[in-house]
Amino acid sequence: MKNFVYHNPVKVLFGKNTINQLGSEIDQLGGPALLVYGRKKIFDNGVYQQVISSLDNHNIAYIEHSGVQPNPLLSHVHKGIEKARKYQCRVVVGIGGGSVIDSAKAIASGVETRHDIWKYFTGKKSVKQVLPIVCVPTLAGSGSEMNSGMVLTHDDKKQKFGFAHRALFPRVCLADPTATLSCPPGQTAFGAVDTLVHCLEPYFSAEILQAPFQYRFLTNVSRTSMETCLQLLATPSAYDHRATMLWTSSMALSGISTSGLGKINYPIHLLEHALSALYDIPHGAGLAAVLPGWLAYHRESLAGRFARFGEQVFEIKNGTVQDKSSQMIDRLLHFLYSIDCPLSLKELGINDKHLPEIATHCCSQARIWRMKDYNLQNVSALLDSCYLPLIQ
Amino acid sequence: MKNFVYHNPVKVLFGKNTINQLGSEIDQLGGPALLVYGRKKIFDNGVYQQVISSLDNHNIAYIEHSGVQPNPLLSHVHKGIEKARKYQCRVVVGIGGGSVIDSAKAIASGVETRHDIWKYFTGKKSVKQVLPIVCVPTLAGSGSEMNSGMVLTHDDKKQKFGFAHRALFPRVCLADPTATLSCPPGQTAFGAVDTLVHCLEPYFSAEILQAPFQYRFLTNVSRTSMETCLQLLATPSAYDHRATMLWTSSMALSGISTSGLGKINYPIHLLEHALSALYDIPHGAGLAAVLPGWLAYHRESLAGRFARFGEQVFEIKNGTVQDKSSQMIDRLLHFLYSIDCPLSLKELGINDKHLPEIATHCCSQARIWRMKDYNLQNVSALLDSCYLPLIQ
Repeated sequence: MKNFVYHNPVKVLFGKNTINQLGSEIDQLGGPALLVYGRKKIFDNGVYQQVISSLDNHNIAYIEHSGVQPNPLLSHVHKGIEKARKYQCRVVVGIGGGSVIDSAKAIASGVETRHDIWKYFTGKKSVKQVLPIVCVPTLAGSGSEMNSGMVLTHDDKKQKFGFAHRALFPRVCLADPTATLSCPPGQTAFGAVDTLVHCLEPYFSAEILQAPFQYRFLTNVSRTSMETCLQLLATPSAYDHRATMLWTSSMALSGISTSGLGKINYPIHLLEHALSALYDIPHGAGLAAVLPGWLAYHRESLAGRFARFGEQVFEIKNGTVQDKSSQMIDRLLHFLYSIDCPLSLKELGINDKHLPEIATHCCSQARIWRMKDYNLQNVSALLDSCYLPLIQ
Repeated sequence: MKNFVYHNPVKVLFGKNTINQLGSEIDQLGGPALLVYGRKKIFDNGVYQQVISSLDNHNIAYIEHSGVQPNPLLSHVHKGIEKARKYQCRVVVGIGGGSVIDSAKAIASGVETRHDIWKYFTGKKSVKQVLPIVCVPTLAGSGSEMNSGMVLTHDDKKQKFGFAHRALFPRVCLADPTATLSCPPGQTAFGAVDTLVHCLEPYFSAEILQAPFQYRFLTNVSRTSMETCLQLLATPSAYDHRATMLWTSSMALSGISTSGLGKINYPIHLLEHALSALYDIPHGAGLAAVLPGWLAYHRESLAGRFARFGEQVFEIKNGTVQDKSSQMIDRLLHFLYSIDCPLSLKELGINDKHLPEIATHCCSQARIWRMKDYNLQNVSALLDSCYLPLIQ
């Protein structure tokens, strides 16, 4: 096991009606609050009313910054930073899915900073001052509510980059599974894929292979997210399954699964970010569309890891390593198919004339993430494999 | 799933040579430091020298408070509190196993308090001011380095009680598995039993049964602690296994496994505390000696849970619920036997004339812990079962 630092200071208030505690939590952090959210959804599901009522009960002043879109934009974050400065906000609250929480983090990290926050994403500056971040997740998947990462798209450069820093952990997360009950089947499935891929990437790339607690943790989250997704597609309003999905997705990227595993790569996310920088697609759909081609491309080189995942997650018992690896890929694709995910870039609606541009984008992020194997030649071949994989 | 709060703010620096960072960590918390430790061991394994050298490098003043014994005593904690006050210590460092870390917590919670800290344990006072706690675990098992609990024995009353409060989480944990390399076989085994029992108790008592992520987490820790214990008894100086054991035992009681499971009882710990209040026995040995009788006593009433644990942890596939439950008990006892644990109170050296006194002690703690079924009649019958269980 490699040396590691584990420090996840997020205070999670989990369960029914926990959003009512927003006011008292913010009271301890100071106000006014900038409320960051998307568009219509939090009005429809009652979350907006709960938030406002709790803030009013504690006389917390707030300013609203709505309109975060999926694959959130730097320009919208810039406007949020200006608003937070103008109204002297002392806390930033993200109410929504991963895009909203990431935007809240980005705004919180920019209010007391003179340079453009994009410099974090390109590795040119490090985070120093961050306003306290509070989040109210309304989607299970990204895990942003319990980690220190954020992903943003630069409008002009069409780059979608990720960045993490320990100052970006939310202070408080008010996680009420009720807020996810009305999540439609597509988003439910894409969220589960996001959680699953947060396990696959360490499992298939980690430097350290002998760490039974961590690998069993990854196995646990993989199995739980897949089985719970299927249960939710059958019974979307089952509170307990929503609760399991929300808590499991928070745990997936909380830092435990990767503790001591050394260097880990996030190749599926790398490819997906390049897609959704150009195309306005849901993150989880992009991950699903990339996965079959990525698995096919690594069928030989990662057969041992694929077989082991098959044994642990799908209880595949018979056959050679190659057989088990193939069976594992089949099982994974069958899962994606059964929850109605796109299984190729073509199916996702990507035009193959954009593949070179997507490849270039991948290489920019790969350099920042120090993924040496992801050079232009390899990435181009990989994208070809993802465009129309041979294993469907 | 029940509502819950999850907030484990401990910063863990895990791995080789992390103890060298003690000075810089304490520098951020303020000094002088009270160093709490046991007797000879930390001199033999080099940990003491590492600690002092790191403190000296950062010019941190320190006072030593040595002599913590297994089943730590309130009187020794009182002396530590006096010492910390006299030398105006601003941070308390526990260097050792669970007894030492618990003593450090108790001292830290008493320095700025006027009343006797025993009032926490009897439920008469709640914690308010606690000095920052730093810990350097040298044993895997208690999990005290990553939780908010402490257990102490009242010298005169011969009561060993446990107490938990969120202010008792250590600020920093410097966990170097190297410090556990010289741990002898007995302590290694007893530590693994402690970790295992931290899983069995929620698994067999939790209010909520449908929470797949949490139950798989418990399964993970149970399997990993048992298999790693066997590996360590064969190869005591295997760093990776020591690392797995240390991190797994920290995770076992970190709050994740029990999140959302509602009310949980700790009956094996209840019984063991009563034993070691009277007899100076290692905690893990006491747990092992109680377990067979406790399992036999609940063979009928908890057959469903026992069978499920058997399926998940031991992969028992065939038979009725009763069959699987019996097989599970056999497997668990076989594990305890194979690592050379005592399997009954008699084998542990308890004199049966003390059973009534032990029963009375149990009932005192059971009242504070609100375990209604643990009245004098039931506890007496249970202790009879533990004295010479029928299932060895």
